[in-house]
Parts: sequence; structure tokens; C-alpha cells
Amino acid sequence: MLTDDIIRPDQEIQAPPFGEGFPPKTIALVGVSRTDHLQHPGYTGLRLLRILRDGGYEGRIYPVNPKADYIDGIKAYPEVSAIPERVDLVNITVPSPKVPAVLDDCARAGARNVQICSSGFGETGQPEGKDLDRQIIEIARRTGLRVIGPNCMGFHVPSARMKMFEDVPLEAGPVAFLSQSGGHARVFIHHASAMGIGVSKVISHGNALLMDTPNFLEALESDPDTGIICMYLEGVRDGQRLMDMVRRINKTKPVIIWKGGLTGPGARAAASHTASLAGEKRIWEAFFKQTGAIQAGSIADLIDMAVTLDRLGPAGSKRVAVLGAGGGDTVAAGDACANAGLELPLLSPLTREQLMEFIFLVNQGIANPLDLPIVFRDVDVLRRTLRVLASDPAVDALLIRVGSEFFTIDDIFPPVADFAECILDLVRNETNGKPIMVAVTEESSLEPAEKHARALREFGVPALGSLQRASHALSRAITFQQYQREH
Amino acid sequence: MLTDDIIRPDQEIQAPPFGEGFPPKTIALVGVSRTDHLQHPGYTGLRLLRILRDGGYEGRIYPVNPKADYIDGIKAYPEVSAIPERVDLVNITVPSPKVPAVLDDCARAGARNVQICSSGFGETGQPEGKDLDRQIIEIARRTGLRVIGPNCMGFHVPSARMKMFEDVPLEAGPVAFLSQSGGHARVFIHHASAMGIGVSKVISHGNALLMDTPNFLEALESDPDTGIICMYLEGVRDGQRLMDMVRRINKTKPVIIWKGGLTGPGARAAASHTASLAGEKRIWEAFFKQTGAIQAGSIADLIDMAVTLDRLGPAGSKRVAVLGAGGGDTVAAGDACANAGLELPLLSPLTREQLMEFIFLVNQGIANPLDLPIVFRDVDVLRRTLRVLASDPAVDALLIRVGSEFFTIDDIFPPVADFAECILDLVRNETNGKPIMVAVTEESSLEPAEKHARALREFGVPALGSLQRASHALSRAITFQQYQREH
Repeated sequence: MLTDDIIRPDQEIQAPPFGEGFPPKTIALVGVSRTDHLQHPGYTGLRLLRILRDGGYEGRIYPVNPKADYIDGIKAYPEVSAIPERVDLVNITVPSPKVPAVLDDCARAGARNVQICSSGFGETGQPEGKDLDRQIIEIARRTGLRVIGPNCMGFHVPSARMKMFEDVPLEAGPVAFLSQSGGHARVFIHHASAMGIGVSKVISHGNALLMDTPNFLEALESDPDTGIICMYLEGVRDGQRLMDMVRRINKTKPVIIWKGGLTGPGARAAASHTASLAGEKRIWEAFFKQTGAIQAGSIADLIDMAVTLDRLGPAGSKRVAVLGAGGGDTVAAGDACANAGLELPLLSPLTREQLMEFIFLVNQGIANPLDLPIVFRDVDVLRRTLRVLASDPAVDALLIRVGSEFFTIDDIFPPVADFAECILDLVRNETNGKPIMVAVTEESSLEPAEKHARALREFGVPALGSLQRASHALSRAITFQQYQREH
Repeated sequence: MLTDDIIRPDQEIQAPPFGEGFPPKTIALVGVSRTDHLQHPGYTGLRLLRILRDGGYEGRIYPVNPKADYIDGIKAYPEVSAIPERVDLVNITVPSPKVPAVLDDCARAGARNVQICSSGFGETGQPEGKDLDRQIIEIARRTGLRVIGPNCMGFHVPSARMKMFEDVPLEAGPVAFLSQSGGHARVFIHHASAMGIGVSKVISHGNALLMDTPNFLEALESDPDTGIICMYLEGVRDGQRLMDMVRRINKTKPVIIWKGGLTGPGARAAASHTASLAGEKRIWEAFFKQTGAIQAGSIADLIDMAVTLDRLGPAGSKRVAVLGAGGGDTVAAGDACANAGLELPLLSPLTREQLMEFIFLVNQGIANPLDLPIVFRDVDVLRRTLRVLASDPAVDALLIRVGSEFFTIDDIFPPVADFAECILDLVRNETNGKPIMVAVTEESSLEPAEKHARALREFGVPALGSLQRASHALSRAITFQQYQREH
């Protein structure tokens, strides 16, 4: 294991990568072969070149290959120092043993930002890989190169039409994602798009040998395009620095973290994936508690939190009234909400009395969670019920559980737009600002619930496609709101 | 709250409902109106009559309505005692206050099995409802009627073409479902069908005022069509009897239970749904521990367990080797498996050595979980890897995590049938019987993973459509196998 003083070069080198030269207007790609190796399933230099070009990247691309004059019709250069201008970013894909020589060449060429895509370093666990790590650190310290990676995919920036993978969309939006896993970065971009939210920057920093998570986080903190920061983290070298930074950033931009490797087997896989020391579970528990960072458990969960925070108004506390229909489903809703950390207060006698003025108790129930099929057959009853619930002083937020069939059975139920308008109007005018979150539920196939939840979000309603997810996101969002109020 | 001596009539009355007269060859439906009430969204007698008739029910149906001669072309009778034969089952749908008089009529007619669909009893929490409960108990005790419900949907029996809902399939199979929620019963039938497994009997027993869970369980124990018993339970009156029974049945047929109402809000909803006392969480924890019953958390989870138990061979312990691809995904797999209770042992030096004979470590990893993209590009490597892993004495089972794209990219990957054959052949001939479970994974949409997992199951491979579900099911299945070996 590398000791701290070996791996930390001068602070100057650790400066955040955004600012001048970012997003890069010029990229050199080192290790671009002339023809496609059909048998090579990984990301080759040629593949990355085509991803940038076919994605419509707006800057200039310089392939580097000593044996080629042109690659795919683009002029190639024998080395980085032969390129006629100073490039903003060098992307290296040559086999790991050749990387140190390329870094020296980058330094000679006056390049500052260098991204090493190649794998085969410390993460292999082999002595050769660890030795290459030491060489890279030594070169970076000597030359001032800012090294991103190795074993990473680098940057995806919609505003610069800079793509990370062939098949990902370039949809701009407020969410940044900083990930030690390139695979997770890819899934994140796809899933965010499917959930109807775009990205500002997606950064895959792999082994994070030199430019570590705090460096990128600092850049995202001051990035005007980024409003919400999501992270996938396997390990971090300077935990205290990360902690201070997250605590500070959380006051203005929510930081949502999926920490991989919190179990023994997960940590073992993290060591072999990015040579990360995953750290003990209890240390990370303290981290989340002290920084106010929101903990997530998957890519989908990161995005659930992002879209929820993007739309949910402030709630005074976790005391929630939960409204839905169906006997067994209401029991399950009570269990799910309680397990998610929501508090379901008993409704006041006045609230119960007001509800019983227009609600009949056979096959319905006004405990909290409430089981009221009638509200999904008559929007006026829905509105009246929500108004009564919001007026209960024990209730600080409302969660509606609605089956996706509600939006699909013509002539009986209102369309999504009317339902969304009803919810938004109530929150604006009748709930004293108490927020209303919606869980769209579906019995077997998930697609209709996802579709309608997304449609509701497009109208501005915080909504997710299952009760489990909605209750879990609502609970963590309210915890975060409380953290922001108190810090 | 009803005390035990009030609610428990003679044991004779509590006899299981199957046997002579079950499935019923004759059903009287009490409370069938002549025309459809379009405005009535619930289950009316007329609706139930049409469900039976249109579903192709093979027995005779007698609608009971004092104001009608024929309903939907079927001869109607003014009361049960006017029906010219003794019926096997009476199904009551009249409003709750009229139910006691109907029960008296049933007793006069010599009917034994009576199912009360109507709601409006103890579950309303109102004095009128509780008083009706007492009247029903008194009548049952006096007359010997076996009362099912109230507030229930009764029976769904594919072998008798007896349907519970309009839209559910009549697919026969080894799984029984006993549910206090009619809604959950409906979802179960649909979901089992979607998962490719049929049902023997689905029973919705609602408030379980007299015929309680143990009665039905006893019937399912001796039912030759039932191999696996799933249950949704809100409360039970005689916990000791249930415990003794489940402990005994588990030796031959797995009992999988979703217990609703384990939290405060869930328990409150259960009281208002089926007037059940949900019981404390720690009592139920002890129940699961002592009976060996498998705990589930949703309908989907019950069925995941049923299909897994239906196909998984015996594993010596929870020490599992987990094989998949992708750096971040492998970390997530390690965490998910550990959180599911699986143990991922370190592989022996010999195993690692044997793997390194044909596996290159750049972008791959042979910690456990293993990150080996190569096995999904070459079936011979997959087979060789599984063989090596199975020969490790520290490993008692194998879990493969495979992306659904593996089955869809033509010319590169083998079709499902070949993959299934490879797995089955290995288990038969090369793993010393160590079972192999498959998790088919999919990044965003779930449908392809579900589809391929189902296809694998149809070939006999235990497979589920996500790693989370597969690891959780595998862990509980092995715990259950251990319980069966030790008891």
C-alpha cells in the first residue's frame, strides 16, 4: 500500500481540473491504431476517437500514432510533442507499461491535463502494476502534469458535445456524476435520460491515483451548470479533506453518494477494480452523519434522489400522511414508509371527524396510512381529503400512492395533466406549503408506473415509480432539508 | 378486542375446509342483483356470478335473490333453503347487517361451508361491526357452520376452473397462496403467471374471524396438488397452533410468509383492513427462527422464493463463488451478496493458480466476487472457470451474474438454450452437485432480464431477473435447506 507522502504531490498539481482549458477545446488521443480490432471488446483509442467525432465533439482531435499519417481521415502525429498546438487534454490508451514514456512526452509538449484510460496498474495487485503507479507519481511530481485515472473513462460534457460512450445521449441538465466506475458512469447517463433529467458533467476518475475525488468535487462546487452532485465512490485517500468539502458543498448543492465496498466482499472487489481502500463501514456511517451527504445504494437510487430534490418543496419534519387505496397495499405502505424512516402520526380527532363527514368506512380506512379508494374515483374528494390532511398540525408532508391504472382508464379517471395541476394547485394555495410527493404503483410490469411518474415530474410534481422508492427518497430528502436548515 | 374463548368455537367447526365438498361442485351466491350497478366499483354478487360462469366454472351456480326468477339466464331462488340440493359452498355478498339472517338460512338449508365476501364488520372499528362479529360467532357455534371471512374473496382453484377475479389466468401449478388480502391474492395470481409458475389453490380468508390461517394451512398440508405454500398474513389468533403447524409442514413443503404490519403504521392499517392484531416484530422474528418459515417482503418476493425453491439443488452452506463482469458492478455484487447473508469465501491459492493459467488480470479480477468479462465472450472459458470454482473446497454454491445482452447479441453470445444446457450439464456432471444460480441483470429497463430469467427457468435453471433478488432468494433457500436437514 502506498503511503500518503508518496502519493500526494504538490498541492498545485492537485488543483481542480475545470477552468481554463475545460471543457477541452483540443484533445490528443495517444494509442489510436489505424484499424479496428474486431476481437478487442474494450475501449481502444480508435473507438474513443470515433465516439468523440461521431458524437459531434466541437473541439479539435489529434490522434497520436508513430506509424500513421491519417486515421479515419484525421491527421495523426507521431507523438504529443509533435502536435502544432498545446492541447487541453491528452487521453492515453496505450498498454500500461508504455504509459510513463507518454507522460514524459506530454510534459515536453507542455500539456497539463492527462487522462490515462489504460488499465493494468495498481488494481491488478501485481508488482509490475504497483511499480507503474510509483513511476506515474514521480513524473507528475517532477513535471506538474495533472493526471486523471488511470483505469478511467474521463469526461462526458453535453455542453461541449463531448461523449463518453457511443450509445449515450448528450442531454444537458443540472446533475453531475463523479464516478470511480466507467460502467456506472455509462448506466448513469442512460438512466438519467430515461428518468427525464439531464447531466452537466459525468466524470469517471477510475483509480484516482493523483487527481482524487476532492479535486473534482471542488470543480463541481463552483461549476455554474451543476446544481446536484452525485458520486460513486470506492475509496478516497484524504478522507478529512473530502469530509470538509462535502460538509461545505451540502449547504448549497446536495451531494448524494453511493459508497461501494462497504462489506468485506465488496471491499475486496473494490481493491481489484480501482486499487481502492474501501474503508470501514462505521467510518462511512460517521461520514454521512457528519457531512449531511445523502446515501444511495445504486445508480437508480442516486437518480431517484436527484429528481426528488429537484422538485420537492421544504417539509417541516418527517411526519407524513400517506394516502392510497387497497387493504393489503395499505398495510404494505405503512410498513414500507416506517422502514424508510418516515413517521406516520395519528390523525387528530378533528381531522378524523372532518373526513368522516364525506367518507364511508366500509372497505375504507382513515388510520394513517389511509385506505380510501374513493379519492381515486372522484377528484373533488381527493382534493378535499388532501386539504383536510394538510390542515392537521401533526402532518408536515403528504405522500400519495396511486396505481398507474388511475391514469389509463379513460372516462373514469383524469389524465396526468389534471392530476398534476390538482397537486400543484393544492401545494401553492391550500397546504400551507406542505409538500406532496407521489408514488405511482404498478402490480407487475414496472413500465406504466415509470411512465406516469415521469409525466408527473415533467409537470413539476415530485413523483417516483414505486412506493418503496418514493418513501425512501422522501425520507432522505427531508433529512437533507433539515441538515441544510441547521447548518 | 375479542377474547380467545369467545372467538374459538368447537374444534369440530374448525376442521379444514378441503375434502368432501371441496372444491365445491355447487355454489349458492347470496345477494345477486338483477342488473349491474355501473357505479359500484366493488365485487357484487352479480360480478362474482359472472366471474365464475365466464371463467368456465365446472359446478352448478345458484343465485339467491327474493325478487328475481332468473339472473343472467340462470334460475334464481329466494333463499338458500329453497335451493333443491344441498350446496357445497354459500358465498354471501349482502350488506353486513343482513349477514346474520342469511347465516341462519344457510344452517336451515344444511349448508356447511359459508364464505362472507361482504365487508363492514370488526375491521371498521365501529361498534356495529364488532357486534356483527359476535352474532356470526354465536350462529357458527350454535349451527356448526364453517364460516370463511368475512371481508374476503374466497377461492381460486384452477383444477375446478373456479376463478377469483375476471382478469386472472387459470394456470395450475404447485404453489398455494393463502392471503388475508384479496388484492394481494389477485396480484399473486397474475405475478405467478408472469413468472411462469402456476397455482394449486389461492385462498383469500380476509378477517379470518372463525376459519383462521391454521385451518387452511392444515388443508394445504395434505393437498396433493400443493408443493409450496405461500402466505400473506396480517394476524393470527392462535399463534402457538400456527407455529407448531408451520414447523411440521416445513419438513415436507416449504412455507413462505409475507407478514404485513410489522411496523406501527403497518399494524394500524392491518387493524383497519382485517381487524387483525399484527403482533410485535420481535415475536414474529422468533416465529421465523423457530419454525424455519421463509420470510418474504412482497408478493414478488414470495414468488421469487417459490420459483427458486422449485429448481435449486441442495447446497452444503452459504459459501458462494460469485461470477460476473464489470468493475463497479462487481463491487456492487459483493455488497449485495454480503447484505443478503451469503458468505463469499476467499478462493484457495490452488484455485487462483488454476484460473491464472487462462485468465489475464488487466480489467479483470479473481477476488470473490470475480470480475471476468472473458467468460461471457467464450463459453469454453465460462465452463472451465465454473469447473475450477466448483472444485474449490471453500465453495458450496455458485452464483452467476449475467447481463441480459449476453442472450441477445447474435453471433457473439450463445442463445439461452445453450447457456442453460451448459449450466445444467455442469451441475449434473462436474460440480459435485454444487448448485448454480443465475442472476440475469439489466441496466435500465427490467423487461429483458425478466424475459431471459424466465426462459432459463423453463429449462430448469434457478434464475431471477436481478442480482439483488437472486442473492436474497439464494441465501434464504440455503437457510431453508439447512433447516430441513437439521429437523
